[in-house]
Amino acid sequence: MQTIRVNASQSYDVVIGHNLLDSCGERITQVSKAAKAAIVSDDTVYGLYGERVEKSLKAAGFEVVSFTFPHGEASKSIAVLSEIFDFLAENHITRSDVIVALGGGVTGDMAGFASASYLRGIDFVQIPTTLLAQVDSSVGGKTAVDIKAGKNLVGAFKQPKLVICDIDALSTLPEEFFIDGMGEVVKYGMIKSAGLFDKLSRHNLGNIGEILEDVIAECVSIKRDVVENDEFDTGERMLLNFGHTLAHSIEQYYNYTGISHGKAVSVGMMMMTRLAEDNGLCRKGLTDELTACLDRYKLNISVEPKPYELGEAALNDKKRMGGSINIIICEDAGKSFIKKMPVPEFLEMLKG
Amino acid sequence: MQTIRVNASQSYDVVIGHNLLDSCGERITQVSKAAKAAIVSDDTVYGLYGERVEKSLKAAGFEVVSFTFPHGEASKSIAVLSEIFDFLAENHITRSDVIVALGGGVTGDMAGFASASYLRGIDFVQIPTTLLAQVDSSVGGKTAVDIKAGKNLVGAFKQPKLVICDIDALSTLPEEFFIDGMGEVVKYGMIKSAGLFDKLSRHNLGNIGEILEDVIAECVSIKRDVVENDEFDTGERMLLNFGHTLAHSIEQYYNYTGISHGKAVSVGMMMMTRLAEDNGLCRKGLTDELTACLDRYKLNISVEPKPYELGEAALNDKKRMGGSINIIICEDAGKSFIKKMPVPEFLEMLKG
Repeated sequence: MQTIRVNASQSYDVVIGHNLLDSCGERITQVSKAAKAAIVSDDTVYGLYGERVEKSLKAAGFEVVSFTFPHGEASKSIAVLSEIFDFLAENHITRSDVIVALGGGVTGDMAGFASASYLRGIDFVQIPTTLLAQVDSSVGGKTAVDIKAGKNLVGAFKQPKLVICDIDALSTLPEEFFIDGMGEVVKYGMIKSAGLFDKLSRHNLGNIGEILEDVIAECVSIKRDVVENDEFDTGERMLLNFGHTLAHSIEQYYNYTGISHGKAVSVGMMMMTRLAEDNGLCRKGLTDELTACLDRYKLNISVEPKPYELGEAALNDKKRMGGSINIIICEDAGKSFIKKMPVPEFLEMLKG
Repeated sequence: MQTIRVNASQSYDVVIGHNLLDSCGERITQVSKAAKAAIVSDDTVYGLYGERVEKSLKAAGFEVVSFTFPHGEASKSIAVLSEIFDFLAENHITRSDVIVALGGGVTGDMAGFASASYLRGIDFVQIPTTLLAQVDSSVGGKTAVDIKAGKNLVGAFKQPKLVICDIDALSTLPEEFFIDGMGEVVKYGMIKSAGLFDKLSRHNLGNIGEILEDVIAECVSIKRDVVENDEFDTGERMLLNFGHTLAHSIEQYYNYTGISHGKAVSVGMMMMTRLAEDNGLCRKGLTDELTACLDRYKLNISVEPKPYELGEAALNDKKRMGGSINIIICEDAGKSFIKKMPVPEFLEMLKG
């Protein structure tokens, strides 16, 4: 088991290891004096792990109430958020109680934003059950819901009191979820760690399990370091968006249902690296190496829309600032930088 | 004109004076480099002042877009909030733009929460146009919307970049709005300033206008002092809730439409002071003095429900913590304290 301490505006631990679900209640008592724990989860994850988590929370002395919503990105809406608020109020959850987010990124986002807003903020603990949520959503405090105009356009910065990453939870979920997370894992290698990228390039979907605890811990550490330098997302943290500007447009193109986030990010990274290589902004051959690495995790895929078609959509993205856009370039594996580009120049580059 | 500096997690000025609407644009350029200003207002206030504010903002170089919603507490909903988010996104408002809240408490709450959540936070400026909003909502950073289960149960702490209180705006609005605000003004005297309470007891609705700039400035200063000591509402700030625990129940009883907030607070203060006097917790005669003072502002009213009937409803209030409730007692004008009471004892006291 590994524990990574995150020092944000509120400090907390990310615990990574095997078989942690059954002891979650005990761990949560160490960070919360709550009388009640409100589990927020989706129907799939709750069906798999809800009972074990409830049992552990009750054994640790919490009164437990549970809210579940239909799984999938479509639930990341203000309508479902509103249902969570009503649920918390109806169950008399007070400022001294705790919300437990049990599930993937959608659950973490929804429960996190609900925790930030209900009574103007109550404590929450995250139990991410997907690889993507463990390496991405568990650190950083970003929570959000989608609105008509786009993904993650409404939300809050909210730090959890504790994050519990149970690696065994990953093996129960369909392989698609695991693949999805590997997109972000490769991203961490690309932006900050040549060593991690190298490790990933020497493993594959079949044997990555052997080094998974270390890989997750390394991703969490990288994100921790970046976020600690820039909690409120005004500078270095943008590096984490490598591949994401185009990825968001791709997800939008497929109506958030046709392609997973990790796959969209993989395509976004490949497109951006190809463009960087074509424009002399990165080492020759890097795109091929990235593509080969992603291929090992069934992430070397292509999408219908061309980069320039994704450009206009990207301009609604919140990363756009005034008349310019910040894009992330990897000059080599493990070495990334932020490039502020006038919007017309960005569109021109996308046209190739 | 008076300027009061508020040092919260973000520092800002509250400017109080006459005829400030026409120069608001210029003032806002001093705190924001935004290209666009998005006005959020209700239909009534926008009809009265929208044009002047837009004109001033445009003259100062802002591109201006405006969103209005139907006036009244019923609009303080997640549904209208959601419309604001869509409006901001459709108009491509970015993190470097600014929201201008033009109106009373509902507008400040809605626009403030929207500013806190849209893109996880963009700047906002408040132009409160009611006395209640000028003395209450302009300082403290509390923003909120109502949900089914109760008032203000969802929200955020969000500090504005600037607050502009135009006293002339108050005279255009119906007298009822002014009376409403006087309830909170008397509250400030009761909890923190015997001098203010005395001044209010020697004026009335007809001549309070003569000293209004000073009165508003004193209220804002009191709230500033209290909030600076306790930005996130865990201690002294609870004093500002004097009369509010029962007031919220009264408003709920009348379905948020039958009674104004200021009137409900006035009744709440009188009830709590009567109970305090009956239980030896305050100076004999204080209830009569408070009643006489409120009478000068048409606020000596009575309501249908009895204190004990309001008790159970109050227990859903977010001020309840675990098995006890924090109530605010004034032992004399200008002298208040927080009393933590077990819930059964509180209900017993309400039964008289």
